[in-house]
Amino acid sequence: MSEQSVRQFSDVSEGEALPSQTIPVTRATLIHYAGASGDRNVIHWDEATARSVGLPDVIAHGMWTMGAASRVIAEWAGDAGRIIDYGTRFTRPVPVPHDGGSSIDVSGTVTTLDAEQRRATVELSVTSGDAKVLGRCRAVVQLD
Amino acid sequence: MSEQSVRQFSDVSEGEALPSQTIPVTRATLIHYAGASGDRNVIHWDEATARSVGLPDVIAHGMWTMGAASRVIAEWAGDAGRIIDYGTRFTRPVPVPHDGGSSIDVSGTVTTLDAEQRRATVELSVTSGDAKVLGRCRAVVQLD
Repeated sequence: MSEQSVRQFSDVSEGEALPSQTIPVTRATLIHYAGASGDRNVIHWDEATARSVGLPDVIAHGMWTMGAASRVIAEWAGDAGRIIDYGTRFTRPVPVPHDGGSSIDVSGTVTTLDAEQRRATVELSVTSGDAKVLGRCRAVVQLD
Repeated sequence: MSEQSVRQFSDVSEGEALPSQTIPVTRATLIHYAGASGDRNVIHWDEATARSVGLPDVIAHGMWTMGAASRVIAEWAGDAGRIIDYGTRFTRPVPVPHDGGSSIDVSGTVTTLDAEQRRATVELSVTSGDAKVLGRCRAVVQLD
């Protein structure tokens, strides 16, 4: 990624919508994520165990969801490294059925701008089906 | 994971230190994480590109660091699903050399308790070598 691609502060406006994305998630996604992240919790790959603890199905790792959602910001900003602050509330799990998996729908809005520091605060909406899976999902982005 | 293993609110005290962890990160960790997370940015796997944009080396994905650090809380709480809120500031990158990789040192402290909701706020210290790589790294944990 080149520095040239970073979004200019002067091109951003309050209330601006970021390009939305629908990001698929399958059981295979979770197996890869389990190995990569070190989070091998069985509720992310074993349906029987997930159901035995009251979950509707195997669920995605919350950190996968949070990371995947951040792509909408990274691609808009032009560089994931420009996300300097990121936080969320894990409001609902993302069940991932055996057949076909699931997906998350991520959209974002610029809520505030800091002209002095050339920073934008972005608020994400992250849903899966009808469920809001992340709440108060906010990032501060350093623009050029 | 069993529900029985979740930490009891009554067993937690303000100022309590969580068991620290040193978590290794190698180039292979990042390759796995790139595939699993969908973040294929070349600065996480190609040294020449990383250096060409002014980085000291290939660097870990910020979301990998954030996720890995959360393990300290998940293991202390007994269930990653009890982390209901999580946020941080990405203060410094984690360079990952070709030979031997690197690691992050994660420690945590219970900063506040909410007896009514049986929740604890945990603040993490996340360093790599001498560098503080995450700042204001805080989670709210739902205890039993």
